[in-house]
Amino acid sequence: MAVYTDVPDDALAAFLAHFDLGELTAFKGIAEGVENSNFYLATTAGRFILTLYEKRVDVADLPFFMNLMEHVARNGVACPQPVARKDGAVLGTLCGRPAALITFLDGVSVRRPSASHCRSLGAALARFHQATERFEGTRRNALSVAGWRVLLDQSLPRADTVADGLAAEMSGDLDDIARLWPRDLPQGVIHADLFPDNVFFLAGEVSGFIDFYFACNDMLAYDLMICMNAWCFEPDHAFNVTKAKALLDAYQAVRPLSEAERMALPVLARGAAMRFLVTRLYDWLNVPEGALVTPKDPMEYVRKLRFHRSVTSARAYGVA
Amino acid sequence: MAVYTDVPDDALAAFLAHFDLGELTAFKGIAEGVENSNFYLATTAGRFILTLYEKRVDVADLPFFMNLMEHVARNGVACPQPVARKDGAVLGTLCGRPAALITFLDGVSVRRPSASHCRSLGAALARFHQATERFEGTRRNALSVAGWRVLLDQSLPRADTVADGLAAEMSGDLDDIARLWPRDLPQGVIHADLFPDNVFFLAGEVSGFIDFYFACNDMLAYDLMICMNAWCFEPDHAFNVTKAKALLDAYQAVRPLSEAERMALPVLARGAAMRFLVTRLYDWLNVPEGALVTPKDPMEYVRKLRFHRSVTSARAYGVA
Repeated sequence: MAVYTDVPDDALAAFLAHFDLGELTAFKGIAEGVENSNFYLATTAGRFILTLYEKRVDVADLPFFMNLMEHVARNGVACPQPVARKDGAVLGTLCGRPAALITFLDGVSVRRPSASHCRSLGAALARFHQATERFEGTRRNALSVAGWRVLLDQSLPRADTVADGLAAEMSGDLDDIARLWPRDLPQGVIHADLFPDNVFFLAGEVSGFIDFYFACNDMLAYDLMICMNAWCFEPDHAFNVTKAKALLDAYQAVRPLSEAERMALPVLARGAAMRFLVTRLYDWLNVPEGALVTPKDPMEYVRKLRFHRSVTSARAYGVA
Repeated sequence: MAVYTDVPDDALAAFLAHFDLGELTAFKGIAEGVENSNFYLATTAGRFILTLYEKRVDVADLPFFMNLMEHVARNGVACPQPVARKDGAVLGTLCGRPAALITFLDGVSVRRPSASHCRSLGAALARFHQATERFEGTRRNALSVAGWRVLLDQSLPRADTVADGLAAEMSGDLDDIARLWPRDLPQGVIHADLFPDNVFFLAGEVSGFIDFYFACNDMLAYDLMICMNAWCFEPDHAFNVTKAKALLDAYQAVRPLSEAERMALPVLARGAAMRFLVTRLYDWLNVPEGALVTPKDPMEYVRKLRFHRSVTSARAYGVA
C-alpha cells in the first residue's frame, strides 16, 4: 500500500481537462494497491479512483484490463468502470505514466473473512467466471508453472536463509506440480489475485471486485483455489474447512465443477500456493534499497504448500 | 503522509457502533497528515475522515482541538467538524489510540499557490483570527522562542554537518529574535501550521482549513508570517512580493494590522522561519531507524531565515 507518484496541480488539471466531469472537489492519495499509485478524486459529477500505472504494469496490457472491467460489470459482477475521455479514450498520461479514471466502487474489504463472506465470494466468483467465458480479450498467464520455475531458480541459492531445507522442499514440490498439472480443464479469464483486499462487501454480501491487473487466461478452478488459499486459512495457518466448504458449495451452486475439475483441486491448490510462494520468496530476497513496502513473509505460503501436499482428494476441502 | 495504524474489521465495527451513521460503505487509508493515521470513511449517512491520533499528539489537547473546530466553523471559516457519538462524546478509542470521526471537507489543496490563492487565503486567515478572538479555550505554544532554544541546543553539535557554519548562524539569529521578539501584540488562537497542505480550495477560493493540531495561543501577526513563509516563496527560494502583497492586503481588508504589528512583521517572519527551521533541522538529524517519512530539507528554511534577516521594514513584504 503506497502512493508512489506526486501529482502537481497543473498536471492534474491538464489530465482532467480531457474529461467532462465538472469541478474538482477532492483529491487524496490512498493507501491501496501495491503496484500502482491510487487517488480518491471527486468532482461535481461523482466520485472516482485515479490510477497511475507504475512500471510493473505493462502498458500494452492496459486495454485488456479496461475492456475486461467493462465486460464483467455488464455481465454479473460489479467492478470499477473506466471513465471515457471526451475523445473516447479511457487511458491518458499523467506525470509521464499511463493513467485512468475509474468509477468509485462502494464497499469495504474485510480483513478477517467469515464463512458467510466466503459463501458470498464463491457465488460472485462463479458469476465472474460465467461472465468471462464470453469475453473476447486474452492475456497469457506469465505466472504459471514455467514462470514459477524461473522465479524459483533465481531464489534457490538463498532460499535456505529463509528456512532450512526450503530450496529442496520447493524444488520437489514444483517437480510434482509440473508433472501433475492438468491441461484440459475449463479455461477463461481469471482474476488471479482475488485476495480479501480486492473484494468489497456491503451489508455482508460481495458488492464487487477490484484490481484486475493480474487477470489472464487460465483454468477457472485454479482461480477458485487461489481464493481458497487466500480466504480459508486462519491467522494461525490452520485450514478452515467450514470456510472452504462455504466457498466451494456457493461456487458450485452457480457453476458446478466437472468431475475432472474436482479431481484436480488438490494439485491446483498446491500450484496456487506455489504461485504466491515463489513471488513472495523472490520479493523477500530482493528488497530494493529504501523500499517503502515491507515484503510479505513467504512462510505463510510455505505452510499452505505443505498442507496441500498432504491432501489426497477434494474431500479435504469439504467437496462431496 | 502515512498511514501508521492498521484497523481490524471488528475494531472498526465496535468503534462505529457508538455512532448513528448507518451502514459502512467505504474505508480507505489516505496519505494525508504526518502526525496521525487518517482514513476516508463513508456510510449511508455521509462522508467522513477517521483520525487515529498517534503518539505525537497529546491526548489532553484533543478536546481543545475539537472545540476549536466547532467554534471556527460556526464563526466564519469552514473546517471539518467532529461528529458526536450517541453518548455525546466526540472522542473514542480505536486500536488503543484516541480516535475521532470528523466530517469530510470538500476542496483540494494546491501545491503551487498563485497570487490569487494567496489573496483568498489572506481573507480567510483574517476571518479565522476574528473567529478565534471569541474562543474561550487556550493552549500554550510550546514551540515559541524558549522551545526553539531547546531544540536548537540539541541540534547545535551536528548542525554544521548540514551546512558549514550553520550552528553559529542559527545561534546568532535566535539571539537577535529573542531580543527583538514583541510582547504586546494582539493575541488569539492561531493555526500555527497553515501550509498549502492544510488549506482547501474550490473554484479558486478557500473552502476551508484542516489539521488544527498545532493550534495554540500566540500573536495573530505571527500566524500571518508563518503563512507568508509557507506560501510566498518560489521553488527556487526567491521571495515573491506579489504573492506576499496579495496575502497581506487581503488580510488587512478584513482585519487591519496595527502600526505595532506592521513594525514587527520582519522579526515575526524571521521567528516564523526559525520555528520551522529548528524542527526540520532536529528531524533531519534524528531520523528514526526504518522511518517511512523522509524528513524535509532544513535548507529551505535557512534561506528564508537569511532573507528576513536582511529585511528592515514591512515594505519589503509589500505592506505600505
